[in-house]
Amino acid sequence: MQLKIYNSLSAEKEIFTPINGKKVGMYVCGPTVYSNVHLGNVRTFMNFDFIYRSLKHLGYDVRYVRNITDAGHLTDDGDVNNDRFVKQSRLEKLEPMEIVQKYTVDFHKVLEKFNLLPPTIEPTATGHIIEQIELTKDLIEKGLAYESNGSVYFDVRAYNEKGGNYGELSKRNIDELFANTRDLDGQNEKKNPQDFALWKKASPEHIMKWISPWGEGFPGWHLECTAMSTKYLGEQFDIHGGGMDLKFPHHECEIAQGKGCNGVSPVKYWMHANMLTMNGARMSKSTGNYILPQELISGENDFFEKAFHPSVVRFNFLQAHYRSVLDISNEAMLASEKGFQRLMEAVKLVDSYQYQLMEKKPTTINHQPST
Amino acid sequence: MQLKIYNSLSAEKEIFTPINGKKVGMYVCGPTVYSNVHLGNVRTFMNFDFIYRSLKHLGYDVRYVRNITDAGHLTDDGDVNNDRFVKQSRLEKLEPMEIVQKYTVDFHKVLEKFNLLPPTIEPTATGHIIEQIELTKDLIEKGLAYESNGSVYFDVRAYNEKGGNYGELSKRNIDELFANTRDLDGQNEKKNPQDFALWKKASPEHIMKWISPWGEGFPGWHLECTAMSTKYLGEQFDIHGGGMDLKFPHHECEIAQGKGCNGVSPVKYWMHANMLTMNGARMSKSTGNYILPQELISGENDFFEKAFHPSVVRFNFLQAHYRSVLDISNEAMLASEKGFQRLMEAVKLVDSYQYQLMEKKPTTINHQPST
Repeated sequence: MQLKIYNSLSAEKEIFTPINGKKVGMYVCGPTVYSNVHLGNVRTFMNFDFIYRSLKHLGYDVRYVRNITDAGHLTDDGDVNNDRFVKQSRLEKLEPMEIVQKYTVDFHKVLEKFNLLPPTIEPTATGHIIEQIELTKDLIEKGLAYESNGSVYFDVRAYNEKGGNYGELSKRNIDELFANTRDLDGQNEKKNPQDFALWKKASPEHIMKWISPWGEGFPGWHLECTAMSTKYLGEQFDIHGGGMDLKFPHHECEIAQGKGCNGVSPVKYWMHANMLTMNGARMSKSTGNYILPQELISGENDFFEKAFHPSVVRFNFLQAHYRSVLDISNEAMLASEKGFQRLMEAVKLVDSYQYQLMEKKPTTINHQPST
Repeated sequence: MQLKIYNSLSAEKEIFTPINGKKVGMYVCGPTVYSNVHLGNVRTFMNFDFIYRSLKHLGYDVRYVRNITDAGHLTDDGDVNNDRFVKQSRLEKLEPMEIVQKYTVDFHKVLEKFNLLPPTIEPTATGHIIEQIELTKDLIEKGLAYESNGSVYFDVRAYNEKGGNYGELSKRNIDELFANTRDLDGQNEKKNPQDFALWKKASPEHIMKWISPWGEGFPGWHLECTAMSTKYLGEQFDIHGGGMDLKFPHHECEIAQGKGCNGVSPVKYWMHANMLTMNGARMSKSTGNYILPQELISGENDFFEKAFHPSVVRFNFLQAHYRSVLDISNEAMLASEKGFQRLMEAVKLVDSYQYQLMEKKPTTINHQPST
């Protein structure tokens, strides 16, 4: 039996052939821990938990790296004041690292409730600042990045001129991108709007900052995954997963960074998990069509008539293919609850049947002819 | 009512007066995550959890920092091959960061079982390499540290000559220390045996290493606590806690590093928790007088006649003063179980009494004269 994986890079199902025999390296983009994990994230991580368990079940020795983004995830590349952690820490009157701790603890608790296994390595962005500075220096030396006003940007045009293929994962035409984008306010540090930050200069009042060859600053979001995947899985590894929304620009940037630094495409199989919707619409805090994992489990919400056990939620989520959009609704959850109960009853029947078999076993063995 | 704290530095009970009004900064030395947390560690962390809860109960706004040592904790200052993580990763055939993840997850699970609250910030040594390099550079500039063969050592003699008082916490006479110690094998990089590593050179085959102004290496254990406490609590903060065994050299070195860098004593109140023994003897893997927290809870051990609920263990531990040695034995645990059950029955009685009061309340209110 051959395992086939749909590879977002080739846009085809491919036979899974790991780079190093039975050893599999898998990297999954983890949460940005500045707020409670949302139910859509839980679905994504549950899908990769299922993939992790499946690979182990098939006999692979999996090193599963899932990072924690605890610095540098800007809401907008052009504005340093949009650091998610700094914004949230002002809102909650907590130190940025208190925000990180609060929501990391929440994240772990929620995933444990849904019976997800911890990854084998869970590295943090702040734990790999030196590695990110080194990669940035390397990209500047190779002519693929430039400093501008204390920040460093990846030069997408130079990358493509040197044989890179920015857009290969998201199937975007880079020339069209260049033609159709205009210079947004505050982005005039960049040569081109497609260029992305590897390192951002920090203003004097910015709290989360580190010294670097370009002055005090903090790493750009895309770089941390390249730094940590390279460190723990090597320059080329088997599987990279994440939510569909990370395909562009995040994963596109990871490929460019990896190829730029090491000359090779970092990932053999790119896997993207699809969205979770509720009552047919996208979940969004601004529209109010939004529910936290805890609210679904506790029943304290306006969308569902009762509380649902985490195992029922898991049963519901895992009935859908990870590449399909899944919609949850009151009716769907009630049906999953029934289905889950039927499954549990069947398991009990099988258990008691196996127990009967076990009890009969000695007798059966005695009746076997000796060879 | 005034809170008094026994301060290990003054060796006296002192009235607790925080540096910044109702805001309290507390740092507690966390685990070195290269093996399962042992029961004595659980007692230490439970005591500081109790102190944390007590301070909050008294109305203080506590920032509670407890670190994770995930790099650089050498078994012997003089031998780089004694890196605990590297040794354990060879033993378990895992990457050092897989060791870190495995035992960090275990640590969190165990403390959660015993109902300990997470700290407000839980920083890691690997997350603060840059800060440690900066402190080391600072100490060299101030003439309090020197490079030797790619490693950097704190110069204890120079520190004392410049007005430092190495030995002030552990009440050791530094001149006697200098007179009585001889140069141990492999320590000849140091000017004096009392000097301790701020940064250690890594051999080419060493896995956990970072680039620094002194070549590839990794931080010495004592420095991480100075780096993290300064970053999150400031140059001077209220409470520093840890096990009694950390008083010397670890906390002594922290005072020297803090005073050396910032010119002020870093901690106002030093608190040290005492040991846990079993059946009257020190717990030690080598003698076999040793039990893991899980073994005590599950009953799978040779020392106790039954399993004990984590709340019973907590009840037992918190009956002893944190500065006293506590001995656990089968008899003591059975007695604690009885005591805990009596307490729970009393709580139930109080609950039902309060419930009765609540039920009567509306009637009582109606009978009050109106004003």
